Amino acid sequence: MADVALIAIDWGTSSFRAWQVSSDGEVVAETVSPSGIMAVQDEAFDVAFESLVGDWLDAIPGVPVIASGMIASRTGWVETPYVPLPTDVGALARALVRHVTDKGRVIYFVTGTAVNPAEGLPDVMRGEETEIVGHLATTDAAEALIVLPGTHSKWVHARGEEFATFETYMTGEVYAVMLGHSILGRLKTEGPPTPDSFRKGVEVAFTDGSILGKLFSARSLVLFDRLESDEVGDYLSGLLIGEEVRAGLARHGSERPITVIGRGDLVDRYITAFSLCGVTASPAEPGMARRGLFEIARQAGLLA
Amino acid sequence: MADVALIAIDWGTSSFRAWQVSSDGEVVAETVSPSGIMAVQDEAFDVAFESLVGDWLDAIPGVPVIASGMIASRTGWVETPYVPLPTDVGALARALVRHVTDKGRVIYFVTGTAVNPAEGLPDVMRGEETEIVGHLATTDAAEALIVLPGTHSKWVHARGEEFATFETYMTGEVYAVMLGHSILGRLKTEGPPTPDSFRKGVEVAFTDGSILGKLFSARSLVLFDRLESDEVGDYLSGLLIGEEVRAGLARHGSERPITVIGRGDLVDRYITAFSLCGVTASPAEPGMARRGLFEIARQAGLLA
Repeated sequence: MADVALIAIDWGTSSFRAWQVSSDGEVVAETVSPSGIMAVQDEAFDVAFESLVGDWLDAIPGVPVIASGMIASRTGWVETPYVPLPTDVGALARALVRHVTDKGRVIYFVTGTAVNPAEGLPDVMRGEETEIVGHLATTDAAEALIVLPGTHSKWVHARGEEFATFETYMTGEVYAVMLGHSILGRLKTEGPPTPDSFRKGVEVAFTDGSILGKLFSARSLVLFDRLESDEVGDYLSGLLIGEEVRAGLARHGSERPITVIGRGDLVDRYITAFSLCGVTASPAEPGMARRGLFEIARQAGLLA
Repeated sequence: MADVALIAIDWGTSSFRAWQVSSDGEVVAETVSPSGIMAVQDEAFDVAFESLVGDWLDAIPGVPVIASGMIASRTGWVETPYVPLPTDVGALARALVRHVTDKGRVIYFVTGTAVNPAEGLPDVMRGEETEIVGHLATTDAAEALIVLPGTHSKWVHARGEEFATFETYMTGEVYAVMLGHSILGRLKTEGPPTPDSFRKGVEVAFTDGSILGKLFSARSLVLFDRLESDEVGDYLSGLLIGEEVRAGLARHGSERPITVIGRGDLVDRYITAFSLCGVTASPAEPGMARRGLFEIARQAGLLA
């Protein structure tokens, strides 16, 4: 049996990943499952947990377990609080929530983070904070802008290890509901990827006017045969990602190094949108959630 | 039998209204039905038309019939072209599309209008052009800004009788799909109207930042007990209408008299949003579709 210092778990809405990690942060073993929290019936998280990693825990008695993601939300297993900004890996390590399962296993859940200014809007994240910690552990930039695309995209301004500010854009969810339920989805047909229509959408997003108006162009361009019906999805994606990138750069500027964390195809779209703005953004290495879980566990003195 | 010079029909996606109109434009009789084009099965428009106004046509032989709305679209009975901007009541009158029904009745369908610049985005309207003609017939302003809220809101800049430019905002449809299918809808509970949360949404819409970001505040404000779950719908309405009003005023300015055409509660929301911008907008008189149909028919020399 290899040296295993930690079981690290990234348990999200629609997926589950766990790793056995050595004391120097290397992956010893990995398991991936579609058992996200939505797939767990009747809140049977104890049962799901045992079936997913019970064998590992039996084989490595006493190994510490850390978990983050939507599993630690109101709709998950244990609801952890939101640590207020500014925060960093140390504060997240101090805020871990210890939970004992029905079978007596101990799990440390990572908290989310939040901003809630008296003037201005509150915002929350849960799960992304762990990926950001992972990324910040790989860089020594004094300032960084970190973008995590998704259903609810996050933009985070970090100073050294500290999360200074962040905000959310509902880009992925607006894309999904407009394609799934609006007149734009009824126009769309399937086809191969159309990168040119994605870029066209981004370029329109950078022009004056509201996205509420530009969205309608996904229909009117089709009516005038200036967009094919199998291009509607990529054009809409470009409009929305372009709007997010435009707004994020207007807020944060482009002086800091920009890193995009996420799955490959979506990251590529963001990097393309940044480049159409004349801004360079870089993809993060894979494995940021695992790396972040390891860093938080290490700072909390949990490593076996 | 009163003097009836015209049967005017406003046949939209989800409703049907028809009027017997006298030679001076007064209503002699009216019929309202939920038989919008979506309710007509298997494109049986001839049958629907006879059941809705066949009795009138039998009682007033030879009376001219004019119709506008989505009935004249690709998903309706007869698809009429889009007359290009700039246009006016005279051009719309010249562009009427004559159609003979299975039973030999003659109907004149109003065309939609469109812009399709080589540089820039195309846009279309169908049905609203008739309401605008109706409003312009009631005013002698040299310049006007006319707002028609709805699923796809229209903003029209008119110079005298001429439609100079217009654009569409998908405000109503984004509201409906976000409430019906996104995480925001899952937060929402029913309750009495909450005009304060509508105003709060409008005020947030007027601040810096993208609507893609502000939408998420409908969730985060609830998480921090700064918005009740029964306020989510009105707050979201305020965010989206506020965004449309902000963008429309940024494009058109507020120097011209602003008129809002539509149903009462929605018009009230827009007028509130304008007033929160320090801008005065006025509701149009009711009956603009009927009035517009009458004006187009009169200019076309159709009146009996």
